[in-house]
Amino acid sequence: MKITMAHGSGGRATSQLINDVFKNANSNPVLDMMEDAAVVAGSGRIAVTTDSFVITPLFFKGGDIGRLAVCGTVNDLLMRGAIPKYITSAYIIEEGADTDDLRRIAESMAETAREAGVIVVAGDTKVTEGSGNVYINTTGVGFVPEDTDIKSSDCKLGDALIVSGDLGEHHAAIMSRRMGIENNIKSDCAPLGEMVMNMIDAGIELHAMRDITRGGLGTVLNELASASGCGFELNEADIPVTPEVEGFARILGLNIMHMGNEGKLAAVVAERDAERALGIIKNSRYGAAAAIIGRVTGGEGVVMNTRLGGKRVITELFGEGLPRIC
Amino acid sequence: MKITMAHGSGGRATSQLINDVFKNANSNPVLDMMEDAAVVAGSGRIAVTTDSFVITPLFFKGGDIGRLAVCGTVNDLLMRGAIPKYITSAYIIEEGADTDDLRRIAESMAETAREAGVIVVAGDTKVTEGSGNVYINTTGVGFVPEDTDIKSSDCKLGDALIVSGDLGEHHAAIMSRRMGIENNIKSDCAPLGEMVMNMIDAGIELHAMRDITRGGLGTVLNELASASGCGFELNEADIPVTPEVEGFARILGLNIMHMGNEGKLAAVVAERDAERALGIIKNSRYGAAAAIIGRVTGGEGVVMNTRLGGKRVITELFGEGLPRIC
Repeated sequence: MKITMAHGSGGRATSQLINDVFKNANSNPVLDMMEDAAVVAGSGRIAVTTDSFVITPLFFKGGDIGRLAVCGTVNDLLMRGAIPKYITSAYIIEEGADTDDLRRIAESMAETAREAGVIVVAGDTKVTEGSGNVYINTTGVGFVPEDTDIKSSDCKLGDALIVSGDLGEHHAAIMSRRMGIENNIKSDCAPLGEMVMNMIDAGIELHAMRDITRGGLGTVLNELASASGCGFELNEADIPVTPEVEGFARILGLNIMHMGNEGKLAAVVAERDAERALGIIKNSRYGAAAAIIGRVTGGEGVVMNTRLGGKRVITELFGEGLPRIC
Repeated sequence: MKITMAHGSGGRATSQLINDVFKNANSNPVLDMMEDAAVVAGSGRIAVTTDSFVITPLFFKGGDIGRLAVCGTVNDLLMRGAIPKYITSAYIIEEGADTDDLRRIAESMAETAREAGVIVVAGDTKVTEGSGNVYINTTGVGFVPEDTDIKSSDCKLGDALIVSGDLGEHHAAIMSRRMGIENNIKSDCAPLGEMVMNMIDAGIELHAMRDITRGGLGTVLNELASASGCGFELNEADIPVTPEVEGFARILGLNIMHMGNEGKLAAVVAERDAERALGIIKNSRYGAAAAIIGRVTGGEGVVMNTRLGGKRVITELFGEGLPRIC
């Protein structure tokens, strides 16, 4: 069935769309009440984050917009050390979108929510004119454990910098798909709860964490450096990247440091905990290729020791990057 | 300045857009941290709601998409008896949108948030191809006071039905603007915190509340009836509507019962508290034209006693309604 403007009326057609597409995938006692707002249990400190997803295409190797919409928001909560609990799901659907696609997306969201341990507690659907695009906003609510306080400004001189796996996969997968290039590169789109919670449970002294999304590691590190008033020194040889993504980037003239991921984090950890944190990430789901790639310095900005023995300044991303990568 | 795809990169251009347009309007200690998630104080029971706004035009008599995006979400929290506390603000901006417009919208959001007593704790900006449309998702978090439990399924036989003011104003204002009709009809777009909190503070036995948005009062009442397994009997003569909106609806063949508002609620109140609740609403901001318009019956569906002495069944809205009314 194709979506028409009537599906956005708020009347009968809207409720049919919700029942048809979204309700089965996301049935739970809170959502099924169909109230104006969900009422759920709270805690002493809550974390809140919001993210809209406008990725094209809707389905790609390694994921789809539904999986992405859960992972992106869940990961943002985790980066503050919060335990993700609740998520909202708001669709903006352009006329002409297909309800079969919407159903697949809603099911993928539901499956990813189960994996990530979050409950979808509120939803909304709007329809606009257009050409079948689907946009999803998810907002996440999580609980912050006692004594946990992880923030960008807390990077400290000597801290180790860990990335949780190979860079650039999401970016390369989306770009390959758009350019019609056949390869085996898959998006890394994944919820990172297991590795984060394992580190917190083990008492790792985590100073800052960021997931590496649009803008890439280069942008994330420049933001951390500027928030903390410190610098980063990286070793190019230690940065994990698969040969296939590296080759893809070389041919197209892309910089790995500015390519987006959707299931990777950068963790800034007290030096004495670095090896232990690395071991924990490596033993967690989606963390097998993790590596310590550098450290926090007293300087400013981000400098990389290249494989050839030189030094290169890594900037944040300028210009377009890859439009609609997430 | 016109928005380009580079403003969606997640890199330098995105942070310039945020600094330029959103940061001044919404500066607060939580948001200024620019973290992946906001950490704020929690409570025993929290209410969560999400809503996207796709209204066209962006600016209209009585409001704009920014004011609407705060009111819609704040009002949804209030309908569960929750005290609105935090709100997120996620923009999807089509290429070609104007940053002056965005700044006006952000300032209007900020002003409405202050009026409604909520803090914007998280934001997101995405850019897509298109023709300058702006879509906003807001997700709200509120705290539910002890002993407060207001829900659609709690309407009880004999309860009074109050509407908080004149129907159809938002709908008529948007439609007038689109059709180029000159009149004085303004959108009623408003946050309803004062009247709701005054009722709760006064111990009014509130059984159910819903704000009257797209789909109109007819759709809301059918949803309440079906959730509670009861019916509603209304008196047409008691339904508040201004002569100007009534005339507008008559000329265009619109049904007041299916016209959207953005600053009105329907409250189902224990009969013995009805007059007291009405007085409280009338004395609260945006409530001067409130009226008791009917009661809960043992039947099913919604029946209106017409001005001419007949009976008319009021259905939920079928078909399109007014596209992109919110």
